[in-house]
Amino acid sequence: MNFKQRRSFLKQGGTGLALSLLPALPFAAQVIELNEANLQSGKDATRILAQYALNTQYEDIPTNIKRESIRSFVNYVGVTVGSCRHKAIDICIESLRPVSGSKQASILGRSERFDILNAAFINGVGSHILDFDDTHLLTNVHASGPIASALLAYSELKPVSGKEFMNAFYLGVELTIRLSNALAPNHADIGWHVSGTHPSIGAAAAIGRLMRLTEEQMIWALGLAASQPVGFRDSFGSMNKSFNPGRAASNGVFSALLAQKGFTSSNQMIESRIGWANAMSTKQNYSELLGDLGTRFEIAKNTYKPFACGIVIHPAIDAAIQLRNQYQLQPDQIKSILIKANPYVLELTGKKSPQTGLEGKFSVYHSVAIAIIDGRAGEKQYSDAAVLNPKTIALREKIIVEADPNLAKKSGEAIIILNDGRVVKRYIESAIGGVENPLSNEQLDAKFLDLTEDILPRSKSKLLLENSWNMGSIASAGNFAKSTTV
Amino acid sequence: MNFKQRRSFLKQGGTGLALSLLPALPFAAQVIELNEANLQSGKDATRILAQYALNTQYEDIPTNIKRESIRSFVNYVGVTVGSCRHKAIDICIESLRPVSGSKQASILGRSERFDILNAAFINGVGSHILDFDDTHLLTNVHASGPIASALLAYSELKPVSGKEFMNAFYLGVELTIRLSNALAPNHADIGWHVSGTHPSIGAAAAIGRLMRLTEEQMIWALGLAASQPVGFRDSFGSMNKSFNPGRAASNGVFSALLAQKGFTSSNQMIESRIGWANAMSTKQNYSELLGDLGTRFEIAKNTYKPFACGIVIHPAIDAAIQLRNQYQLQPDQIKSILIKANPYVLELTGKKSPQTGLEGKFSVYHSVAIAIIDGRAGEKQYSDAAVLNPKTIALREKIIVEADPNLAKKSGEAIIILNDGRVVKRYIESAIGGVENPLSNEQLDAKFLDLTEDILPRSKSKLLLENSWNMGSIASAGNFAKSTTV
Repeated sequence: MNFKQRRSFLKQGGTGLALSLLPALPFAAQVIELNEANLQSGKDATRILAQYALNTQYEDIPTNIKRESIRSFVNYVGVTVGSCRHKAIDICIESLRPVSGSKQASILGRSERFDILNAAFINGVGSHILDFDDTHLLTNVHASGPIASALLAYSELKPVSGKEFMNAFYLGVELTIRLSNALAPNHADIGWHVSGTHPSIGAAAAIGRLMRLTEEQMIWALGLAASQPVGFRDSFGSMNKSFNPGRAASNGVFSALLAQKGFTSSNQMIESRIGWANAMSTKQNYSELLGDLGTRFEIAKNTYKPFACGIVIHPAIDAAIQLRNQYQLQPDQIKSILIKANPYVLELTGKKSPQTGLEGKFSVYHSVAIAIIDGRAGEKQYSDAAVLNPKTIALREKIIVEADPNLAKKSGEAIIILNDGRVVKRYIESAIGGVENPLSNEQLDAKFLDLTEDILPRSKSKLLLENSWNMGSIASAGNFAKSTTV
Repeated sequence: MNFKQRRSFLKQGGTGLALSLLPALPFAAQVIELNEANLQSGKDATRILAQYALNTQYEDIPTNIKRESIRSFVNYVGVTVGSCRHKAIDICIESLRPVSGSKQASILGRSERFDILNAAFINGVGSHILDFDDTHLLTNVHASGPIASALLAYSELKPVSGKEFMNAFYLGVELTIRLSNALAPNHADIGWHVSGTHPSIGAAAAIGRLMRLTEEQMIWALGLAASQPVGFRDSFGSMNKSFNPGRAASNGVFSALLAQKGFTSSNQMIESRIGWANAMSTKQNYSELLGDLGTRFEIAKNTYKPFACGIVIHPAIDAAIQLRNQYQLQPDQIKSILIKANPYVLELTGKKSPQTGLEGKFSVYHSVAIAIIDGRAGEKQYSDAAVLNPKTIALREKIIVEADPNLAKKSGEAIIILNDGRVVKRYIESAIGGVENPLSNEQLDAKFLDLTEDILPRSKSKLLLENSWNMGSIASAGNFAKSTTV
């Protein structure tokens, strides 16, 4: 009987008898049955999450959820390998090498090795620096990067099977998304960056699970990790944005290492009146956090970006590419482009004259221009050179963006006026890559190979892709981590 | 012309002319003259703090402030050496040794060596685990621990003179206290632990100053450090409380290391609407943070605990010890003890039956009992054995604590009823160790020697004390760090 079945059994009223029927379960006697107090006030939230993280078996996870977990992981490996030559990664390596003596763990796509704390950090930075990672659209949290980075590093220190790895990965990502949902939207509204504040806890749960912590130790690990939220939205547009999930990854490992040896925390750091949730947000929704654990799977709603930029620009890019391909448009045919978009598009990505690739990712103008020119918006379209290319600049100056509050964030429209007087337009109800219009496995493959082709030899890249898909059944996650390097 | 003089010169209206007169100052042209917008809305706060940290020379600091900085440092060394055999330190060493390969930096009082990030963390934990460190009473922030721990670790990686060390120490502590003052009291009210949330920034400023960062790099270092606040008040009573300043120390070093090599952040992380101050508190007082930099010195109000427990209990202990000594009281003479105290005493330290030394530090009952029995409340009075001693337990059961909202936190009264019918009482206006009644240098010496006597040989302990007092003029801070070990 797994966690989900036990929980549902207990819910059906089988409390007294149920406990006596469950002798084989290590924590059965203490498993908390959720009641209104838990869901309303968050009572025992830290303990409930600890129990869930410790009790869930890979076999408990439905097949479609395992598949989505793997898709998240495949996407992670591709974007992190693909980022490995970014200046931010060079800086991390240069600045941390003098203080990291143990060559324990790999940096994806590189040859350098670091101790597991710094490796988790650097790969966490890499997972997000391209802004190409997985996204749960309720809060735009990018959960996989810090969790996978923490787990890969730890897997080179201790033996971890692929199955254990993917179980822990699912747990870390699921908890991270639920934590983010529970504080939304007030938490981000006051300035926090959800992709740095929540995954410390998810990563601690994932590593703690691999360590087979006791329930008490897991509660401490979650408490220490909750004590280390990272990052604010003012970081957007600088390397600090990727720092946040990177630091969350190392914070999670750090917390679990200490808790495993008996470093104590409180028993209710997440839900305490003077703890995490109350300090981090003016509103808490504990039923988002705790409700239906083991039967509702938030990871199922994870999405993968087809374009290497802020997700709110995606409908505009999708529309532009469709028009370009249908009418075989060339930039010099175009008189002007009108983009109709949700108001967030201008608020978050309104940079008219980006000067760097990183700024280009927050410019709807650059993004639509390169979508017309190249027919894609992959990482190469956000190089510094691409942003400063006179051809791109000329086209982006023809673009007008109109905020339309009636448009959902997933929707948008492009209207292109040609020099010959024709007007072509395309309305996008749900941009490609969203929940309704997800990237196929084949599109994920193409994204992976596109990102990794300049980094790894083609044959190695293909093998890594294949092994990523098979992560749940490979023998050694540590050997997988080693195979990501050059 | 130093920072303070320049600022005051600029304030007197010499803006245009002044700039041309200051060619020798590296940042003269950009030094921001404070105006109402800075003090009201925090405009340019991050840059102003960066400039202050980079421009302040040790010679700029008034003699009495240098003296208070040294007193803070002496107190730090004593309490951190004194904590080195605490279980929390053993756990840190055991859990981090497998991931820390470089033996770069010392752990005070120990023989093990760690990389500078982990050494800064472990010493930061040690600085606070006895709850015996310096306190700025407006917010009860304990600023010295994380700053000194970061600086000592760094001083073993790069050459640092004692003068540079103490200048950076002053800067880090001053900024930490000002940041804490600026968010008080709302920041702590919603749950944050001020001794973990602010010193990341102070430590980054201190290390960045030693690194001689450019202004831009210093702004990034502060931004990255601001992105890593640590800890909530629910940690009180567990090791997590000391984790918070410890992690702040390593976060500060980590941020400066990255910024030095060009890892970018925003230019206004502290004051941004979607940055540090706004997310961390519902109220900000920027004139506390920025006003009179270089002429108002918050470190001047730093205080040092005579007793190894929560500071709100100090008036009660002070009164109890005075009565004990004056009347030569023995526990078996006592019928009952009434303590009148500020209501915070019961709220924060109302544990009636502590079970561990750590819990004893948050028990006014235990504290008054051992004060009567031993005539002191040093670290030895807060061992697990002392807390579980039947004699102590018997006496603490005779103690009644009455909350009196008319009593200030620094004040209190003890009324003791003896078995022979006599009633003796003592009212304390300002407890020993407070701003009005500070510990003398000789009392600091006694505290230092008491804390270190079981750790270091007496002669070594005395030499370390002497060198701590002379820190501002010694040749090598790194050699000092090495001399703190066994």
